Amino acid sequence: MNGRVLALSGGVGGAKLALGLARVLDAGQLTVVANTGDDFVHLGLSISPDVDTLVYTLAGLADPERGWGHREETWGFMEALARLGGETWFRLGDRDLAMHVERTHRLAAGEPLSAVTDHVRRCLGIAAAIVPMSDDPVRTRLDTECGRLDFQDYFVRRRCEPVVRGIVYQGAETARPAQAWMQLLADEPLRAVVICPSNPLLSIEPILALPGVRAALAACAAPVIAVSPLIGGQALKGPTARLMRELGEEAGAGGIAHRYAGMIDALLVDAGDMPAARQADIEWIAAPILMDTLRDRELLAGAVLAAADRIAGR
Amino acid sequence: MNGRVLALSGGVGGAKLALGLARVLDAGQLTVVANTGDDFVHLGLSISPDVDTLVYTLAGLADPERGWGHREETWGFMEALARLGGETWFRLGDRDLAMHVERTHRLAAGEPLSAVTDHVRRCLGIAAAIVPMSDDPVRTRLDTECGRLDFQDYFVRRRCEPVVRGIVYQGAETARPAQAWMQLLADEPLRAVVICPSNPLLSIEPILALPGVRAALAACAAPVIAVSPLIGGQALKGPTARLMRELGEEAGAGGIAHRYAGMIDALLVDAGDMPAARQADIEWIAAPILMDTLRDRELLAGAVLAAADRIAGR
Repeated sequence: MNGRVLALSGGVGGAKLALGLARVLDAGQLTVVANTGDDFVHLGLSISPDVDTLVYTLAGLADPERGWGHREETWGFMEALARLGGETWFRLGDRDLAMHVERTHRLAAGEPLSAVTDHVRRCLGIAAAIVPMSDDPVRTRLDTECGRLDFQDYFVRRRCEPVVRGIVYQGAETARPAQAWMQLLADEPLRAVVICPSNPLLSIEPILALPGVRAALAACAAPVIAVSPLIGGQALKGPTARLMRELGEEAGAGGIAHRYAGMIDALLVDAGDMPAARQADIEWIAAPILMDTLRDRELLAGAVLAAADRIAGR
Repeated sequence: MNGRVLALSGGVGGAKLALGLARVLDAGQLTVVANTGDDFVHLGLSISPDVDTLVYTLAGLADPERGWGHREETWGFMEALARLGGETWFRLGDRDLAMHVERTHRLAAGEPLSAVTDHVRRCLGIAAAIVPMSDDPVRTRLDTECGRLDFQDYFVRRRCEPVVRGIVYQGAETARPAQAWMQLLADEPLRAVVICPSNPLLSIEPILALPGVRAALAACAAPVIAVSPLIGGQALKGPTARLMRELGEEAGAGGIAHRYAGMIDALLVDAGDMPAARQADIEWIAAPILMDTLRDRELLAGAVLAAADRIAGR
């Protein structure tokens, strides 16, 4: 079976499926678009959390316990920074820091984020293309009971505690989606577009908010398959369910389908999460969503591709 | 015995004597002026090697083997940077990196280097004041057989191998010496000014090249005491002797005295380095220059202060 697959992904959950896809597809058949709405500058360093989680995961360097950050990480930098009175609420490991220093340095020299990311993934021997959604800055900000908060302030420093009333993807209306994936979407016969099991509001919708993306997905000839990030109505990691409720969305598979309405052909959900009343315009597929082991990731990737191939009539 | 002491210092050798002085003087009686001619920007980080060596040494955090850098250092950052294809000729330890990231971040926010350094030394509980020679950039560059080289390029990357024909302290003619030490030199009754056993050409003369410094030292009422960095005509570390020869200077105590002519009242040299023919306008004092142990550093500091007090007629 040939044909490229385009996957849209946020951090940990999305990266697990991206790894599964990378392992079941032929080398070079996968392009992963990474959310950059969580990017921020901290201590003068340009940090792209979702890009890095994808890079580490696809390079086999992700920490298997935390799911984010570099494996076999050490924390000498953070300890020394604390002694110097520096900000320590965002933890940067010694190995991880190399990524941020190298990226910051290259961005300052005028390289676009996509080129830096491509350089890094080549150095680490990753066959899949990893494309930041845009080289222009988009910043996810949350309107909360404590005012408008930067994403990392909400997510890390305040541990998602403030009640959210709205989300803005600042800069999204003028940011240009990166050429490398929009061209794929427009020109190439794709085998599938996969929306990975990431938080729709925080990880996928910043990508969808870029000019032309929703229309391109709606018009795309290839099957667009989404995987729900919820199991038993809860996200494995992060505030997906709570955030959906706070924004008046159903915190379940129905809510996920609603967020992606008009764009997706099928939604994979955990068997226990299959709603009784289902939107009729998409195909509902029960699949084992939990991805503890590498084998789980490959199996889910296989289920996604099988659904796409069936829908495409291949 | 009261009265402040002002010490001019480069890196490793100078910092050892600065530590000795800090230990034999009452708390807060020592101000150390640090050479910043070696400062450079690497990987986008502002690095001040001599300031850092002084900070680490006076805080008890210097690596006892290398003499520079942070003790109990780890190298996860460098390993990861190498995998990302980053520049690795200048080694940055994980703990050391906290200093450079915090400094870069604060400088970018508009803090002068002197304020950043003072913040850091307070955080680390250092009683002595550490003052970068200037908040304005001065860059030591070497005219060599391979052309004009940046200091770290010559010193670290090329291991001092190219033959040097001249040295320039770029920016020195317009840089303002920091207020904190020039005021001390002008106004306060000092007990002594100490020129630490650092490389005269690379560590002390960038300080002396700042506007008004040579005149202020020549006019200073307090005794100005220099300590030779040479033992047996060789520096313990670094290229002092070779560099002096390459620039037509005698590579011995006589050459050191010549570099500081008109400014110093006395020169402490190792007993074996006492020249037969000596400049008559300064006092020559034999002293144990080697500072292996903490006790050696205190003894040499005591000898320097005793010389100053005797010359001052106290």
